[in-house]
Amino acid sequence: MATMKDIADRLGISLGTVSKGLNDGKDISDELRKTILDTAVEMGYTNRKALKINRRKIALFVENMDYEEKDSFGYDIVMGFQKASFSEKWNFSVIALTHQFQTENKYENWMLQEGYSGAFFIGLSLDDPWTEQLKTTSIPTVLLDNSIEKNPSVSYVGTDSDDGIDEAIRYLASLGHEKIAFLNGSAGSVISDNRMAAYLNSMARYKLTVDPNLAVYGYFVADCAPYHVPGFIERGATAILCGNDLIASGVIKSCTEYGLSVPEDISVIGFDDIPLASLITPALTTIRQSRTGLGKCAYFTLYSLINGVPISKSLLRPEFIKRESVAIAKPRVAMRRENDPDSVMFVNPELYSHFSRGLG
Amino acid sequence: MATMKDIADRLGISLGTVSKGLNDGKDISDELRKTILDTAVEMGYTNRKALKINRRKIALFVENMDYEEKDSFGYDIVMGFQKASFSEKWNFSVIALTHQFQTENKYENWMLQEGYSGAFFIGLSLDDPWTEQLKTTSIPTVLLDNSIEKNPSVSYVGTDSDDGIDEAIRYLASLGHEKIAFLNGSAGSVISDNRMAAYLNSMARYKLTVDPNLAVYGYFVADCAPYHVPGFIERGATAILCGNDLIASGVIKSCTEYGLSVPEDISVIGFDDIPLASLITPALTTIRQSRTGLGKCAYFTLYSLINGVPISKSLLRPEFIKRESVAIAKPRVAMRRENDPDSVMFVNPELYSHFSRGLG
Repeated sequence: MATMKDIADRLGISLGTVSKGLNDGKDISDELRKTILDTAVEMGYTNRKALKINRRKIALFVENMDYEEKDSFGYDIVMGFQKASFSEKWNFSVIALTHQFQTENKYENWMLQEGYSGAFFIGLSLDDPWTEQLKTTSIPTVLLDNSIEKNPSVSYVGTDSDDGIDEAIRYLASLGHEKIAFLNGSAGSVISDNRMAAYLNSMARYKLTVDPNLAVYGYFVADCAPYHVPGFIERGATAILCGNDLIASGVIKSCTEYGLSVPEDISVIGFDDIPLASLITPALTTIRQSRTGLGKCAYFTLYSLINGVPISKSLLRPEFIKRESVAIAKPRVAMRRENDPDSVMFVNPELYSHFSRGLG
Repeated sequence: MATMKDIADRLGISLGTVSKGLNDGKDISDELRKTILDTAVEMGYTNRKALKINRRKIALFVENMDYEEKDSFGYDIVMGFQKASFSEKWNFSVIALTHQFQTENKYENWMLQEGYSGAFFIGLSLDDPWTEQLKTTSIPTVLLDNSIEKNPSVSYVGTDSDDGIDEAIRYLASLGHEKIAFLNGSAGSVISDNRMAAYLNSMARYKLTVDPNLAVYGYFVADCAPYHVPGFIERGATAILCGNDLIASGVIKSCTEYGLSVPEDISVIGFDDIPLASLITPALTTIRQSRTGLGKCAYFTLYSLINGVPISKSLLRPEFIKRESVAIAKPRVAMRRENDPDSVMFVNPELYSHFSRGLG
């Protein structure tokens, strides 16, 4: 466990300054105080005496999401929430949420009993036992990527897909791509629906025709790629936008198995910018969600709810990250299968022999 | 100008407690400190000495909107923003924004020169001179009811129309209304577009047919009503939802001039809940925007931007307020004009003679 000395050493400041930062001392700038508190959180400093001064409690429930390892999706979200809440004098607990825990406890009762003023949920599924209770709860509650209608005590925090997907489509269009496929995540989730709407809007904006067979829902896992990629290629897609980075990694694998190189033959774009994205080959061009930002945004939103400001949703800007998985569109020519005169494929002339083989 | 004694008298607490609240004293609860600061703002207390401790500056630009009188639309927005920022140690200035001021000054230069860390704009129009500069500014900036694409330093704060309009349509449907007209505000504004989309979604949700002639854009003023109300009545509308309360007040007047009583013959719903809404006859059923909440939400959003959290938009929950301008739908019968066999009107049988007269 880190001590105040460790924090002082890491930041190259005196022990006294660290103490001022942790104990709300006077002659220290807001910026330095924040840096000290952030560092204390990062290093796992948990001096109970320092923490107990005037602190109230907020809860972070995590379900279906890894957060303990530094490169897991949830880590930075938890860290961002923790930093923002800690520097504003809240005690903060992470609670691993299970189905059993939800059936054994009522949400409001548990929160009141344990003395929590509000909660942030990540990874909650809308068919979880507590979802029904969230429709009527009066406890300030923030959900990541999920929304509850008409309850002014519950807010939705997420990433605004529009800007990021628009940047991706604009970039692909500028490189000559016209047949841009979208392999989305699971149907029926709030974020999948938003991303599909954003894709359709941006395609229209850049005057690109949407082929309904190229705009499909899969699942948020790499394994959904093989079911869709061959069809995309046969219909002439020169680029594939994906609902998240895991799907994109599966798409790259499927393209390779099909004999196409990414990005020379076909371009691929992900969503999220998980740590894996920059490590795969080719390094993935993607739309970054700031996970630390989501955690901090969730805190600010929860703080607003606790102060009686009924925020319905707060959305973060995404950031388009260019890496190696996108290139200029490779021209393709229209061809027909011999045994099916109605079928049209858009085939890269260089790959003609491959396609003939593949189609028997 | 209010003194500390005035604040103490208003709240029924000691002068010493007021002093602790204003000077960040220790043994006082967060809630009481906030109440003291809120009261100080409301009463116009401006002890410079108290304010100057550790305070940085944020700006609130107001254009095209009254805010100085207590019953003006902008008053509570400004007050909400001021309360939230004051209790978090910001100095705050209201600046009346004119076209001339914008052409004579560059936004970023002026902000830096005057030492402001960020700004909140209310009433800005997207054809204002500064709009172009907002597309690329790196100064944390929050806009009420307007958004700037792809600039992570600029956020949009507003009211989420969906829940409120859905409540209104659900309520009308439960009272037997099927032909529900929507007289929206001006075309091309972000909020008008959102409200139209919300209206169309909710009509579909409650399985009500949308007549395109009953879903129109007007302007955000009462005077647009006479141009649309007669057509709505002739096409059988039994209820009219309006883009704001001013439009609704014009609609009530037009209905009365047409010989119909609100709500007995036709129901009317507004949007905003301006102070006028509860004072007109009949008292207006409306969808409330929390103006104080918008001001506070703007502050929290600006604070997030200043802390490097790129919020794209934060939306507040509206609240549906039932008053006297809605009643059970009055049945109407389909009729044709004698000289135009293709025309169909839905007419209240009791009003038949009136319609015959009106249509010559």
